[in-house]
Amino acid sequence: MTTMRALDLCLVRTVRIGHGCIDDCARDCAAAGAQRVLVVTSAPIAELAAAVTNPLEAAGVACRVWAGPDGEPTIAHFEDALAAAREHGADFVIGLGGGSAMDVAKLVAALADGSQSFGDVVGIGLLAGRRLPLACVPTTAGTGSEATPIAILEDQADQLKKGVVSPHLVPDFAYLDPQLTVTMPARVTAATGIDALTHCIEAYTNRFAHPLVDSWALEGIRLIGANLETAVQEPGNVAAREAMLLASHLGGMCLGPVNTAAVHALAYPLGGEFHVAHGVANSLLLPHVMRFNMETAPERYAAIAGALGERTSGDAAADARRGVERIERLSESCGIDRRLSDIGIGHNALPKMAAAAMTVQRLLRNNPREVTEADALRIYEAAL
Amino acid sequence: MTTMRALDLCLVRTVRIGHGCIDDCARDCAAAGAQRVLVVTSAPIAELAAAVTNPLEAAGVACRVWAGPDGEPTIAHFEDALAAAREHGADFVIGLGGGSAMDVAKLVAALADGSQSFGDVVGIGLLAGRRLPLACVPTTAGTGSEATPIAILEDQADQLKKGVVSPHLVPDFAYLDPQLTVTMPARVTAATGIDALTHCIEAYTNRFAHPLVDSWALEGIRLIGANLETAVQEPGNVAAREAMLLASHLGGMCLGPVNTAAVHALAYPLGGEFHVAHGVANSLLLPHVMRFNMETAPERYAAIAGALGERTSGDAAADARRGVERIERLSESCGIDRRLSDIGIGHNALPKMAAAAMTVQRLLRNNPREVTEADALRIYEAAL
Repeated sequence: MTTMRALDLCLVRTVRIGHGCIDDCARDCAAAGAQRVLVVTSAPIAELAAAVTNPLEAAGVACRVWAGPDGEPTIAHFEDALAAAREHGADFVIGLGGGSAMDVAKLVAALADGSQSFGDVVGIGLLAGRRLPLACVPTTAGTGSEATPIAILEDQADQLKKGVVSPHLVPDFAYLDPQLTVTMPARVTAATGIDALTHCIEAYTNRFAHPLVDSWALEGIRLIGANLETAVQEPGNVAAREAMLLASHLGGMCLGPVNTAAVHALAYPLGGEFHVAHGVANSLLLPHVMRFNMETAPERYAAIAGALGERTSGDAAADARRGVERIERLSESCGIDRRLSDIGIGHNALPKMAAAAMTVQRLLRNNPREVTEADALRIYEAAL
Repeated sequence: MTTMRALDLCLVRTVRIGHGCIDDCARDCAAAGAQRVLVVTSAPIAELAAAVTNPLEAAGVACRVWAGPDGEPTIAHFEDALAAAREHGADFVIGLGGGSAMDVAKLVAALADGSQSFGDVVGIGLLAGRRLPLACVPTTAGTGSEATPIAILEDQADQLKKGVVSPHLVPDFAYLDPQLTVTMPARVTAATGIDALTHCIEAYTNRFAHPLVDSWALEGIRLIGANLETAVQEPGNVAAREAMLLASHLGGMCLGPVNTAAVHALAYPLGGEFHVAHGVANSLLLPHVMRFNMETAPERYAAIAGALGERTSGDAAADARRGVERIERLSESCGIDRRLSDIGIGHNALPKMAAAAMTVQRLLRNNPREVTEADALRIYEAAL
């Protein structure tokens, strides 16, 4: 047995899990000395912010809610939120929403003091620190951003997504309260759920996998296999919602130390040029990348099938295929778009997308099988 | 499916794992602004402190090493370490050793400012905060104290162990460097390894078990089943040492949110009156408490057998028995004392021990099966 590769974990210090746990947020803010809180959220779910602001205001804390538009956040949105934080004199930031809102909140908390700009910190490890305490409250079970050292904005000037990776972006507090996810529409539940599944699968099959992270990833896969369909079909099922939040958080915990691979790399061009939601792009590509990868590590893909609840035969290649078929059935029963053509992407667009995917080498290098531009094109064609 | 019970996690913010990761400690101290570091360790392993102090001193940080005696720490030891911290003007505390050294370090960091005494904070949630940043470096793979909100000292005046439980006791940094554990004697490797196994088993079979913690516990059990014998038989096997450190850390991660049960409750009197090392006491009682418990939740005990690498049959009761037998073989092959009579405890002592165990209701209430005083006596008799 060889030693494991070195691993650095940066974890959320305080994670509260369970129905009603959001009620503890005001107490935590008070203990942290917060007097002026900025809540960063998204317009479609802004009414959920009351779950946070009502108890805070009752405790005499001044709250301001900044609600961004639906969809992926841009640098302009971030700068607007940053201005709101300064205007409010915020001493504590809460991100409430999906990945978009949480990513903006993370950057606002980190860059509020003005010593660095967003442009200064794009890349890995360039953020000098974070002055404001930060809590994240996911209202989707998907991105797991409340557990990650990553924040991504779209740079509209060059139609590229730009990421900041730093341990300072990992929040101090996370609240996984299923009640805040029950109003999520079925199609968002489905796409974000498959996004969380993708995080777990790409961590588990990663070239830089680690036994500790493997156990988180497999547990996430197990929870999603057992609960995603219920969460889609019975939106008010708090138990299924809670299991999905836990799975999403576990997926997020995998992203810092191991990160994702070819599914995410190939999804980038769908987001950047075609503005396809991150979860939809991932869910659409996942089975095709799995089919491409699984010959390289059939035992890993067979273990995924087992975690998804498939009866395994011991024939790893056959079991691996069964896992992919299970995910395709899952996508189908959850009503997810399954073809690029469903979302308006035609054959002519594919070569440029394949070329763009090749630029995401920081993720492609994690993939268990090497992906050439010709491979990327074939994967897109399979998904057409 | 019902919702899960509410769970509050308090996690170590930065965990570094792998051979040589201790080299990052000086950089982390510098980033935290440390200028005067107190290293709390134990005399038998004090030479390992150089792995921490050499790089710190090379970076101009003033270090003082406080080395306590071998064995479980007392309030007097803690007060001596606290005086050393004050004399040194420490602005950062590092605990390096087994649970004894780490527990003292945790309390020194928390109580250094003098606003509370140890007596003020015995119990749950009474600690007001922690002024000094804190890193823990385990040199045994056992207690997992580097991941827990718990510190325990012996009060020699009344021969009782007294525990402090507070999220403020969870360190800011943990370094799991297998090189620091290779000099651990075989009998310590064995006893502390079974202690870690006990943490995982008592969390997994706990009345307050939670799916997230279950996955940590099962991964810890799996790692111990696959690596403890190798770590005992080949002390220099860094891969086995690393796997054991990871398992011990996972066991520690279970202690905050779920904690232990009857094994630990029944072990208390062995430590308090007979000064039996914590790991030895637990390892001796573990199989007997498992036999007592397993009829209550045979599926859970069968899953433990599976995680230990036993082939399971699907007959839960039989599989559960197989798991206990595997642990008994493991103890035997690791040379662990397996009988109370081996460590000088005779039949006459048992009734008083059973009565003392009954006072540890905070752990007994976690046990999957109710334990009466008569039950405790029968368990001790089985272990005689």
